Amino acid sequence: MEDVCAEIITIGDEILFGQIVDSNSQWISQQLSLAGIKTTRKTTIGDVREDILTAFAEAESRVHIILITGGLGPTKDDLTKPLLAEYFNSPLKINDEALSQVKEFFESRGHELTAINRRQAELPECCKKITNRLGTAPGMWFEKEGKVFVSMPGVPLEMKTIMTEEVIPKLCDYFDTPIIYHKMIRTIGIGESFLSEQIADWETGLPENIKLAYLPSMGQVKLRLTARGENEEYLKNQVQQEIDKLLPLAEKYVYGYDQEEIQGAIGKLLLKYGLTLSTAESCTGGYLAHLVTSVPGSSDYFQGTVVSYSNEVKMNQLDVKEETLIAHGAVSEETAKEMAEGIRNKMKTSIGLSTTGVAGPGGGTEEKPVGTVWIAYSDAHRTVARKLQLSTDRLLNIQLTATIALNLLRIQILKNY
Amino acid sequence: MEDVCAEIITIGDEILFGQIVDSNSQWISQQLSLAGIKTTRKTTIGDVREDILTAFAEAESRVHIILITGGLGPTKDDLTKPLLAEYFNSPLKINDEALSQVKEFFESRGHELTAINRRQAELPECCKKITNRLGTAPGMWFEKEGKVFVSMPGVPLEMKTIMTEEVIPKLCDYFDTPIIYHKMIRTIGIGESFLSEQIADWETGLPENIKLAYLPSMGQVKLRLTARGENEEYLKNQVQQEIDKLLPLAEKYVYGYDQEEIQGAIGKLLLKYGLTLSTAESCTGGYLAHLVTSVPGSSDYFQGTVVSYSNEVKMNQLDVKEETLIAHGAVSEETAKEMAEGIRNKMKTSIGLSTTGVAGPGGGTEEKPVGTVWIAYSDAHRTVARKLQLSTDRLLNIQLTATIALNLLRIQILKNY
Repeated sequence: MEDVCAEIITIGDEILFGQIVDSNSQWISQQLSLAGIKTTRKTTIGDVREDILTAFAEAESRVHIILITGGLGPTKDDLTKPLLAEYFNSPLKINDEALSQVKEFFESRGHELTAINRRQAELPECCKKITNRLGTAPGMWFEKEGKVFVSMPGVPLEMKTIMTEEVIPKLCDYFDTPIIYHKMIRTIGIGESFLSEQIADWETGLPENIKLAYLPSMGQVKLRLTARGENEEYLKNQVQQEIDKLLPLAEKYVYGYDQEEIQGAIGKLLLKYGLTLSTAESCTGGYLAHLVTSVPGSSDYFQGTVVSYSNEVKMNQLDVKEETLIAHGAVSEETAKEMAEGIRNKMKTSIGLSTTGVAGPGGGTEEKPVGTVWIAYSDAHRTVARKLQLSTDRLLNIQLTATIALNLLRIQILKNY
Repeated sequence: MEDVCAEIITIGDEILFGQIVDSNSQWISQQLSLAGIKTTRKTTIGDVREDILTAFAEAESRVHIILITGGLGPTKDDLTKPLLAEYFNSPLKINDEALSQVKEFFESRGHELTAINRRQAELPECCKKITNRLGTAPGMWFEKEGKVFVSMPGVPLEMKTIMTEEVIPKLCDYFDTPIIYHKMIRTIGIGESFLSEQIADWETGLPENIKLAYLPSMGQVKLRLTARGENEEYLKNQVQQEIDKLLPLAEKYVYGYDQEEIQGAIGKLLLKYGLTLSTAESCTGGYLAHLVTSVPGSSDYFQGTVVSYSNEVKMNQLDVKEETLIAHGAVSEETAKEMAEGIRNKMKTSIGLSTTGVAGPGGGTEEKPVGTVWIAYSDAHRTVARKLQLSTDRLLNIQLTATIALNLLRIQILKNY
């Protein structure tokens, strides 16, 4: 079955120049993908006549569906509607239904209908009006030789409502769309290249209709499986079978699926085993606690943190021994371990997790250059530490340390409980 | 002077299908505009040979500068590099400098250099390598008949570093860009509409060649002045004169300029007056400490933090009285004040700063709905608290609380020292 393909055209200088972020096109392509329509290109152009007309023509030459957002306001610099009229060679005319809706919209807010707002009810004769119940600019549906153009306002809430209630159902009627099923497998603790070598045979063995993508970020690699076919149940099973084959090859790196983040997965593990957590942070400066507490309901298992930036605080608040600091320094296996044990006792939690290191840019030495970090895990039965050698970038070091510490916690929980 | 125009091409199914948001292209077009380069189109395409080659050719036919991000990983689905080699008809060859950098990158992390990672050091012969000090995929600079192609990794931090340190300066050398002078005035504690009312006359009085942009974000409003001309010194003075006129109208909201963030401004103030800081955090869960410690050298004035998620920790670690918690609850003026005083005494700092609130989504009550927050400041002579009523979004509440707490700290230091 042939792919039903769509392009998204976003019109507006404010997005082109980066004054506002284009959140619409991401959302639109997600919805299309769920509906079995493949987005093959996104284009952003400014309020420039030639650019807009060219973009229409280029997109029409490539795909079945052209979705356009923005440039529908009543002001001079909004060109989309007149240019659609020109492109389809179909004059703008007042649409009576649209006019009464615009009238109603303004009257309900106690405003007069101005000449400028009247123009919002003008539509190219050849298009079908798409009702916009949240705003004054209607959507427009054009059909041309089996291809469909849809124009929608750029206001996210209006666009989303129009897409969900009108456009997606209409498109699925009009086109013979396949079923697409996505599954994201989230891994941590192994780099993209190492993971890809480890699962190379599995990857080459994937069925024709399942595509694999590697999405690396911040010490993690997400594997996205995209399956196409006619039957959702079949695809779900087919993908699950592939995941079952994959897990033995990468089990210890897989922490979750789809939208689940590492801090969320950790939360589930702690709840599952009835464990509580506290953290002692030096180089991460509270970022580790921030990740843990960014999860709703984390107060059920997270007790608290001591951020110990000075040796005094390490000694007074975490009972790190002065001899340890003198003998081994603040960035050492011994200090990391005493911090993890100290916070666990102080906060009376099942587990204590600690970080201490040289985040940079300053503070590095020959022996302990910037990026040298120790992390430690402590529970009632054991305390283990790990050394990391990270980058020279302070923020990156903070974020990587926190992520790797959460993975140390994950591994130890799975091993010990 | 003719505009120097650029197009941004983003390559990757994960962005095309909406699995991750494309934050890169917005940032890139902002930086280009700051450098006097005009973005005329943004295109996102998938990991598809024909689409990528067509996009290269189309962009080359339209503009001087083509910036490409994504598709540079070592795995099978990353096509950008081989297709650039094909497009410029220039074979891939191991770049010795790149190879030694990749080697070093992996060896410093205690890994062997695998065959796949070796491929990261392969570059089209005709391109200039752009060093990527945060990752293993180098950037590439191609020149063709007065036009420039630049390929960068899609990892935001790597891309941003390469753009700032290498690409933008190179582009400004290579092309005859107009002199553009930017000055950012950073304000906090006043909303966009109120600020704009307060400085309306000043705004209308700005010279023709100076444009003003309001950039609101997270409880702050940045005012960006963009001056266009031929002489940088002249523009600097011209802009400074306008700032001198502005300050009397908004002085108490202005905390810094250009890239200086509120946490950096706070650091300078603390150093200036020889003050030390500690924080006690409930609803911000360590994010406030993270902001403070994200500043290099913050260990000179920051002692530490207690994140007290449970009442036990509030009592045991911060000496909050049990009666206070029973009588007024954890989210109250009294608790916030005792937390600030408690941490100040515990950590022996000049100032203690505290946050306690209902971040949400759960935990709200009739009397204290989600978004109810108390923050407090305490020094040797006084303790003051402020109540906030924020949103229903957990992460937004955490970030807003931390920012507003830093502004409370700023105001109190300026008032009391």
